[in-house]
Amino acid sequence: MKSNDQPKMSAEQVQVFLDSDFPEANFYGKTYEILSVTTGGADVMLLSHERHLRPGGTISGPAMMALTDVAAYVGLLGSIGPVALAVTTSLTINFVRKPEPGHLIASCEIIKLGRRLAVLDVRIRSEGSDAIVAQGSVTYAIPQE
Amino acid sequence: MKSNDQPKMSAEQVQVFLDSDFPEANFYGKTYEILSVTTGGADVMLLSHERHLRPGGTISGPAMMALTDVAAYVGLLGSIGPVALAVTTSLTINFVRKPEPGHLIASCEIIKLGRRLAVLDVRIRSEGSDAIVAQGSVTYAIPQE
Amino acid sequence: MKSNDQPKMSAEQVQVFLDSDFPEANFYGKTYEILSVTTGGADVMLLSHERHLRPGGTISGPAMMALTDVAAYVGLLGSIGPVALAVTTSLTINFVRKPEPGHLIASCEIIKLGRRLAVLDVRIRSEGSDAIVAQGSVTYAIPQE
Amino acid sequence: MKSNDQPKMSAEQVQVFLDSDFPEANFYGKTYEILSVTTGGADVMLLSHERHLRPGGTISGPAMMALTDVAAYVGLLGSIGPVALAVTTSLTINFVRKPEPGHLIASCEIIKLGRRLAVLDVRIRSEGSDAIVAQGSVTYAIPQE
Repeated sequence: MKSNDQPKMSAEQVQVFLDSDFPEANFYGKTYEILSVTTGGADVMLLSHERHLRPGGTISGPAMMALTDVAAYVGLLGSIGPVALAVTTSLTINFVRKPEPGHLIASCEIIKLGRRLAVLDVRIRSEGSDAIVAQGSVTYAIPQE
Repeated sequence: MKSNDQPKMSAEQVQVFLDSDFPEANFYGKTYEILSVTTGGADVMLLSHERHLRPGGTISGPAMMALTDVAAYVGLLGSIGPVALAVTTSLTINFVRKPEPGHLIASCEIIKLGRRLAVLDVRIRSEGSDAIVAQGSVTYAIPQE
Repeated sequence: MKSNDQPKMSAEQVQVFLDSDFPEANFYGKTYEILSVTTGGADVMLLSHERHLRPGGTISGPAMMALTDVAAYVGLLGSIGPVALAVTTSLTINFVRKPEPGHLIASCEIIKLGRRLAVLDVRIRSEGSDAIVAQGSVTYAIPQE
Repeated sequence: MKSNDQPKMSAEQVQVFLDSDFPEANFYGKTYEILSVTTGGADVMLLSHERHLRPGGTISGPAMMALTDVAAYVGLLGSIGPVALAVTTSLTINFVRKPEPGHLIASCEIIKLGRRLAVLDVRIRSEGSDAIVAQGSVTYAIPQE
């Protein structure tokens, strides 16, 4: 996508939308902070909390799966805007390193944005690190209006 | 697997192990109830809570992904016992129907239990329904002692 | 699905359709033999050929992936009939055992058949064996007429 | 990975290895041409042949799955060298656009190269095009010597 394209929603707009329409994502206090939204994807931070930890101090798989889902959704909203009701149809995740306790950043990239189907790639790293701890892909069905 | 085989841990034993070793799974009160453990798999119920709901009343994707992860882990523990420290290496899930609000039951089946690798299939249904709402597969690396 | 339902195409009808509409599937001679088609799925045999073998005598991953794709498509045709033009949108496969040289049988099961989306589970075994050598899932987009 | 690292095998060396050790990959004449191998991945071209085509002129899913498998294997060999016998444990692919007839180029990137497990991301484009037609991920088990 051209770099001078504008996303349909800014990071702030997606954050407001997410906080109001998906209250369960932040049920126990703010959990996801949207760092950036571009036409090609988004960066979302998981504000790591004790409930995300596993024994030994690493972050749980479900916490990373939920982050993958949220990050991909944020990336999609940036490109299609808040009107469409996209539905996650599948999610695949590979856990490749145990993250240290701390915040995680998921970077998603739009692989395909079709009229009816979207596919996004998501990579999760610990804040301040380049090493990928998990890589996922998420597909959406986009209802026709 | 032969039907007269005994699992290495009973449902009660896995429940105790899970509740003590994975406190984050039940961080906000009991969330997963192990219904049965056999040599070939396990049934685990998600005790649905307001935090699992999405607008419109359906159960969130992350809640189903976490259930998939827990159910597969329970099925694996039943076959390898509590000594081994299995690590989830990947999880794939297809969301195929929107579940009604209410408890969900995940049934997992061991596809392969090798010395180093295990693969389990998981199917999620609403309590009292035959319709599959999500289907997943989970792979584990089993460390060599 | 009810056991007294009839599939929309018989094994013979699907075989004729496949052989004429997908000649590339049998480009070098008959490769796939449809064993059965029901309302819930299908069984398809890969007639193993030298080109499917890997050094050491096992059957190649791509041969099993192609079989997974064909078996799922056959299962889908049995339920929706030859009119619809279904498109594979994703395929996931876990290779869990090295198959011996010889024919393979893929059994597919319809997990969900919606108006727009279908998901099938596929399990591959060596002919005459109960052990699963690969397990996959395939998703289709079904165009609206 | 640092850009001044050298891969353990050059594109030419991997090509020779592949052609001799995986003759089934080129059973009907040269099918895969290795374009480049770096420490972080590889580019592999599918020399499209009539047997890879689907009615309507597009390239078949199995041809793209096989290309994904080969490209990831080439990328892995570049980093671990020809000694290790890596085994594909899973492959996931999303088909996102119908490719035009013609050669395809798969670019793979190493997501994780551990002692026992490797994960690679693969993206397929038509020669001369930037649009992704398929995106996959492949995982390997690396036997311990």
